[in-house]
Amino acid sequence: MLTIENEVREKASRAKEAARRLAYLPGEVKNKALYAMADNLVKNKNVILEANEADVQKAEGRGLTSALIDRLTLNPKRIEEMAEGLHVVASLPDPVGEVEAMWLAAKNIQVGRQRVPLGVVGIVYEARPNVTVDAAGLCLKAGNAVILRGGSEAINSNLAITAVISAAAHYAGVPEGAIQLIENTDRAAVNVMLKLNGLIDVLIPRGGAGLIQTVIQNATIPVIETGVGNCHVYVDNEANLDMAQEIIINAKCQRPGVCNAMETLLVHQEIASSFLPVMLEKLKELKVEIRGCPVTKGITPWVAEATEEDWATEYLDLILAVRVVNSMDEALNHIYKYSTGHSEAIITENYTKARRFLREVDAAAVYVNASTRFTDGYQYGFGAEIGISTQKLHARGPMGLKELTTYKYIIMGEGQVRT
Amino acid sequence: MLTIENEVREKASRAKEAARRLAYLPGEVKNKALYAMADNLVKNKNVILEANEADVQKAEGRGLTSALIDRLTLNPKRIEEMAEGLHVVASLPDPVGEVEAMWLAAKNIQVGRQRVPLGVVGIVYEARPNVTVDAAGLCLKAGNAVILRGGSEAINSNLAITAVISAAAHYAGVPEGAIQLIENTDRAAVNVMLKLNGLIDVLIPRGGAGLIQTVIQNATIPVIETGVGNCHVYVDNEANLDMAQEIIINAKCQRPGVCNAMETLLVHQEIASSFLPVMLEKLKELKVEIRGCPVTKGITPWVAEATEEDWATEYLDLILAVRVVNSMDEALNHIYKYSTGHSEAIITENYTKARRFLREVDAAAVYVNASTRFTDGYQYGFGAEIGISTQKLHARGPMGLKELTTYKYIIMGEGQVRT
Repeated sequence: MLTIENEVREKASRAKEAARRLAYLPGEVKNKALYAMADNLVKNKNVILEANEADVQKAEGRGLTSALIDRLTLNPKRIEEMAEGLHVVASLPDPVGEVEAMWLAAKNIQVGRQRVPLGVVGIVYEARPNVTVDAAGLCLKAGNAVILRGGSEAINSNLAITAVISAAAHYAGVPEGAIQLIENTDRAAVNVMLKLNGLIDVLIPRGGAGLIQTVIQNATIPVIETGVGNCHVYVDNEANLDMAQEIIINAKCQRPGVCNAMETLLVHQEIASSFLPVMLEKLKELKVEIRGCPVTKGITPWVAEATEEDWATEYLDLILAVRVVNSMDEALNHIYKYSTGHSEAIITENYTKARRFLREVDAAAVYVNASTRFTDGYQYGFGAEIGISTQKLHARGPMGLKELTTYKYIIMGEGQVRT
Repeated sequence: MLTIENEVREKASRAKEAARRLAYLPGEVKNKALYAMADNLVKNKNVILEANEADVQKAEGRGLTSALIDRLTLNPKRIEEMAEGLHVVASLPDPVGEVEAMWLAAKNIQVGRQRVPLGVVGIVYEARPNVTVDAAGLCLKAGNAVILRGGSEAINSNLAITAVISAAAHYAGVPEGAIQLIENTDRAAVNVMLKLNGLIDVLIPRGGAGLIQTVIQNATIPVIETGVGNCHVYVDNEANLDMAQEIIINAKCQRPGVCNAMETLLVHQEIASSFLPVMLEKLKELKVEIRGCPVTKGITPWVAEATEEDWATEYLDLILAVRVVNSMDEALNHIYKYSTGHSEAIITENYTKARRFLREVDAAAVYVNASTRFTDGYQYGFGAEIGISTQKLHARGPMGLKELTTYKYIIMGEGQVRT
């Protein structure tokens, strides 16, 4: 226990020291480092693949699911994609230093609000080794030191990747300690991170609901909650039903394992009997398991019965809960009750209902006539993201570079005092 | 215990329900309510003063300090000032609903970032009953429901004030539950609030370091840390010393009990022997107790000796720690080590040092040639504030109306799906 605490504390202290210099490292040095990190990844492809192979073998030996093993597995193409991701981050504008506003205030003091890094960012994540590269690149560009704590399944891959990218960054002029991995994969290491007030400025968990809840329940440092998406699509009685069908298929099937996929379909009762038989048959053909409310079962008796638990479940799988609602009010109430505040959509041609949905639904992203799958930093034009925030403080929705910064007030005077 | 938990949970649930409607309550209804609250305060002056009298008598009986009793005591003028404060809030622009940016993103979906309320805000505070009115007014204007939990010393005053303002607000069209006070003054009530994930969106503690630490250590809901200010003024060897003297007196003496007052003075060694004897004599005349480093004591032997603890202490009193530094680097290192990230100032005529200080000091407010006392919502031109954030997430420095809101993305399409 003591050695775990020592490792984490020592790395966090080094990160804090690095952050002090990183805060005003010129943009061109950060970009040079990002390109060097990308080059070094590709150059050391074989070392990384070898380490990854060890992780994959261990995972297979332990009988992990094929989905998990797929997430874990690297290949030359995936390594090139990670390098390409760093190039994209380098090409984005530097968020640090921008004076967003400057004005004359009391006694003519000149007050400016300037964007500065957060400081030290902790990332706790699970099996995907690409998060190591993505998070390191984004944190560096935003001027933050990063402490990475990946899952035990990917430890060999993460060690190899971190060695390669942190060496390249340091060689390019980034202070030592800017990119560090916690090597101890014991759960206790996370518990230490969660309490490092004064050393870690913010913690971003990336992973399943269990990990996120552990972090929220135990952290004394600020946390940004990410990723849990129980997303709804409501098909109004005035919807274009062809459009509804396309959006529903996209929102459920294009990539069912991600947080912005649809989990519950709400359908207005006026169109339910004409729309649902065709729609649900299509989804069945696409291998989607349907769990319906009693009215849905009345229309399409072949579907399974939905329980209360289904309305609250983020399946992350080819399963869909379906409920027929009497009115838009009932749809809004259902969303209010079960939404995790991620992404919610209405399909309607009615102008007033579209406006009402945008106004009344409280979620990070509220859609009219588009797929919930668009909730993503690249899709919104931010270029890259560190995660999707589902809390309201600091950042909401896709978190790009700007959301990895904060601001400070700079005040210039000529001797002003307060009276 | 159960009844405490019941009261807090029930009020929080009611607040959440109110927040749903408050989120899109028209600005004119909110302003009408603010004016009605102000009117009702003045109209019920005597009821409030009577309740306050009971609190003050109890406090005197318990032997509270005169400073604490002064904070607690209301009089007709203070009640009129509270009402006037509500008028100021009504006159500020409504932060809710503003679409700060809107652009075309992937597949030409139209993405807008719109300001929306946080939802339910919890305020935990101590003896000042005016916080009840200030916090309720600011939260209402920003579209939030507020749960107030004041100190036991002010419970009668707070009950009277809350009854008066919440009745007026409700009469003006604000949903019931928008402004509520926790009546139970047991510490256990705070502990319940701290864990109400899903019901309270953010908690803002206002008070001493003890209260704030309790909240940070125990909360599972997001917290905005406020107010602890171990603020420094560094007098450079190239300072205008007359200006330095004025700023130092203002920063230390104008209102020593507040968080933006100076606690430690750092003086460059080149000017220490000429500047300190005059400066410290002046401060002594103003009843400031001086605690100096060994070099300071060498120059002005009459001062007390500073211990390591002094450098880390927020006195909130007429006490000043003084340290002579060899260089600007040493000043920056001292600030880096002991700053609480509130307000830091340099006095210099040197352009490059001024720029360096603004760049390298990491605090909510960084000053050149002006008093740290300006860190305040009114002074910056925000019109009013709920507190001074000393953390980096969400808001930093004076928190005005905008900082009591968050944003959501609204996305309008015509059937777009992701490929």
